[in-house]
Amino acid sequence: MSTPHNREMSSSTTPMELYEKVAVQGDTVRLLKSNKAPKEETDAAVKELLALKLDYKTLTGQEYKVGIPPTNNTPINSNSPAAAEDDGDYVDPWTVQTSSAKGVDYDKLIVRFGSNKIDQALIDRIEQVTGQKAHHFLRRGIFFSHRDLQQILDAFETKKSFYLYTGRGPSSESMHMGHLIPFIFTKWLQDVFNVPLAIQLTDDEKYLWKDITLEQAYKYAVENTKDIIACGFDVNKTFIFSDLDYMGQSPGFYQNVVKIQKHVTFNQVKGIFGFGDSDCIGKISFPAIQAAPSFSTSFPQIFNGQKDIQCLIPCAIDQDPYFRMTRDVAPRIGYPKPALLHSVFFPALQGAQTKMSASDPNSSIFLTDTPKQIKTKINKHAFSGGKDTIEEHQQFGGNCEVDVSYMYLTFFLEDDEKLDKIKQDYSSGKLLTGELKKILIETLQPIIAAHQVRRKQVTDEMVKQFMTPRKLAFDF
Amino acid sequence: MSTPHNREMSSSTTPMELYEKVAVQGDTVRLLKSNKAPKEETDAAVKELLALKLDYKTLTGQEYKVGIPPTNNTPINSNSPAAAEDDGDYVDPWTVQTSSAKGVDYDKLIVRFGSNKIDQALIDRIEQVTGQKAHHFLRRGIFFSHRDLQQILDAFETKKSFYLYTGRGPSSESMHMGHLIPFIFTKWLQDVFNVPLAIQLTDDEKYLWKDITLEQAYKYAVENTKDIIACGFDVNKTFIFSDLDYMGQSPGFYQNVVKIQKHVTFNQVKGIFGFGDSDCIGKISFPAIQAAPSFSTSFPQIFNGQKDIQCLIPCAIDQDPYFRMTRDVAPRIGYPKPALLHSVFFPALQGAQTKMSASDPNSSIFLTDTPKQIKTKINKHAFSGGKDTIEEHQQFGGNCEVDVSYMYLTFFLEDDEKLDKIKQDYSSGKLLTGELKKILIETLQPIIAAHQVRRKQVTDEMVKQFMTPRKLAFDF
Repeated sequence: MSTPHNREMSSSTTPMELYEKVAVQGDTVRLLKSNKAPKEETDAAVKELLALKLDYKTLTGQEYKVGIPPTNNTPINSNSPAAAEDDGDYVDPWTVQTSSAKGVDYDKLIVRFGSNKIDQALIDRIEQVTGQKAHHFLRRGIFFSHRDLQQILDAFETKKSFYLYTGRGPSSESMHMGHLIPFIFTKWLQDVFNVPLAIQLTDDEKYLWKDITLEQAYKYAVENTKDIIACGFDVNKTFIFSDLDYMGQSPGFYQNVVKIQKHVTFNQVKGIFGFGDSDCIGKISFPAIQAAPSFSTSFPQIFNGQKDIQCLIPCAIDQDPYFRMTRDVAPRIGYPKPALLHSVFFPALQGAQTKMSASDPNSSIFLTDTPKQIKTKINKHAFSGGKDTIEEHQQFGGNCEVDVSYMYLTFFLEDDEKLDKIKQDYSSGKLLTGELKKILIETLQPIIAAHQVRRKQVTDEMVKQFMTPRKLAFDF
Repeated sequence: MSTPHNREMSSSTTPMELYEKVAVQGDTVRLLKSNKAPKEETDAAVKELLALKLDYKTLTGQEYKVGIPPTNNTPINSNSPAAAEDDGDYVDPWTVQTSSAKGVDYDKLIVRFGSNKIDQALIDRIEQVTGQKAHHFLRRGIFFSHRDLQQILDAFETKKSFYLYTGRGPSSESMHMGHLIPFIFTKWLQDVFNVPLAIQLTDDEKYLWKDITLEQAYKYAVENTKDIIACGFDVNKTFIFSDLDYMGQSPGFYQNVVKIQKHVTFNQVKGIFGFGDSDCIGKISFPAIQAAPSFSTSFPQIFNGQKDIQCLIPCAIDQDPYFRMTRDVAPRIGYPKPALLHSVFFPALQGAQTKMSASDPNSSIFLTDTPKQIKTKINKHAFSGGKDTIEEHQQFGGNCEVDVSYMYLTFFLEDDEKLDKIKQDYSSGKLLTGELKKILIETLQPIIAAHQVRRKQVTDEMVKQFMTPRKLAFDF
């Protein structure tokens, strides 16, 4: 599972590449229809075709036509704000791409993915059901989209339990601020709902996708587990597992993987994830491994074999393709569909449309950074929405919509009033860029210092406890 | 793993189908070359292309030419003995097809698969190394082909151990005589070499390929295990496992599966196994699961983590594609290539070229058949190489090469002299068809009765013992 920023953002897809993708998908659909393939399979392929055609139109401004490749007109992508409204964002588990400094257009993603917006009425309902004020990630639209959350709330009101599942692809030993988002929010969900939580570390995925050994991938999983534990999870309510470990510890997990793998074709993963014939068979079958923890029988030690405990998955929106696939398969293998909560992406220091690179330490603030490093990175690299001179800034004001320091504060400054005031003052030009950065520095330094203290307290024994398959503090 | 007769024989491939296969494979090779794919991958695809072209020529009598589909001339397949020499046999793990009553042309298969014939010199060497008379399956060419057996013998002479691995695809509760062949031979190998043995039951494969539930597939695995135990294996030297069980019991097994899956592409399994885009991702990734037990680290409890214990796999020749793939991957993941011993196919009662069907109880003799059923099946259904009338038979003699009763005796009548005399007498017409069938009935009835007695003695406790991952009576 890749968390918000744990992915390689590709450089732009060209119109020609997209044209070829649509052509291939068209062939796939025709083949499925002529082979009288199962309806679900054909429908999924058609849906994917329509999405690709939409992407094509967005990118080129032309309708896709069979046999007529894109003309050489400039694509409507440009840097003018008007065109940015029509930009073609591209989002899948390995690629997030946009040319807008504001980042991806999330309302468009909701339409394209067919999910539902988390609106004020839903937030009110969460507060009513839990009796708690909604987390600022909800109030500020950081978790902005969902699937079937109403169902989870309905069931919860009638005392029917559910469980949480989230995860991380351990691609290196060190995690950055963005990686914390799903864990901070998941912890809040666990606290207010009091339900079991399973956290998957897809070390097998990282071994398959990257040029690392199995031993390295597993080591990253263990190191990342320490950072996750440091977020404050309760060992009695939380099971953290590496795929490379747990697959060999629970027949229930593998049996669900095989069930899913029987009900998903290569055509489907080709359509959903863009796999090709020269991809290894490990990548091709991997989606089933990320899907399987969505079903309670993957954890017999926690759920005592019960197969109808529904799952709620908080994750970044780029992980949705895995779970659209999972939700498609679920009823066919006799399981409830998992519900989902989707977050936006955490922006790189250089701006919401730039590439966050694991090999560039300046593209993000790491959980291991010192107070001095944090200060320097923000002062030197955080993209500013302020004006070039103090005079201009005071006259016209800064632009919070593209200012990375302000964006980071929406994630990490909990106080709504303070944040509101900062926005007003910065937009009006009263608050200068340097002052805004200072507020961010002073907000992040203690958060990261506290994390480092907690991380140091995580012992090998604790890691072992969290990663041991066992009954949790819930009766099923 | 499919044992000799656990496969669906397809009806003949038409020239047009084969023409299209060659065309597709040609495209694959061109794509690999233009994409500068890894050398092994391209080589494997080219090898497959050449094999397909050879098949095409054998079937149509024409050279394959791009863009020129086969003409409507009668293919050179016909029932005359001369043409049978040129018949196009087709063998893969799910399809064995021939139009010759003598069965598949095994010498041709050796050339096509690139394996080595087991000749008299090798049989002599086996006898010399083990100090035992070679098993009649070796003496009679039932195990007829090998890969790297010399290496195993060389190492064995210098006291370096190896282990045996074989398997079965549990497609139903009941096994027939043909299913015993690999187990009878493997038991002999274990007895004379005194080495550990792992037996894989691919219940996951059967679930993926057949319209059965996971629970049914697992039940077949357990029932088949009882028949395998009844072959007389030593519980201290033998580990029998269901994939659905063992994958969840040993991280070592899954970790090898992932390693293999990283090093095999969809193009490769498409070339080797004929998978297509509408196949489920479980089938596509399954070959790695049959490959993994070829590496000693899949059994840490037996080999104590040692990764260089070589594996010897006795199996029917149709399983060779799995292990060609395995041998290709082995050096790339730091493991020794497994050695192989290949058997011929066990013929259906109706003749060596007919389809043996699990749904037709008369196509084979089952291990559960009563003495009366055995008698009736052989008398009514065993294809005879005898002549139509006693007079003709006595004048021209019978044909042992196509006579199923005689073929069965080569498998189950251990006495070489008796068998020789039967062949002479039947060929000369002295022994009549009814008399030959009587000899077979009297040979099989006590073998099956004894098996049934031993099978009844297999308790659930014994099954559990054999299927529990554990150290065996060997020190590594």
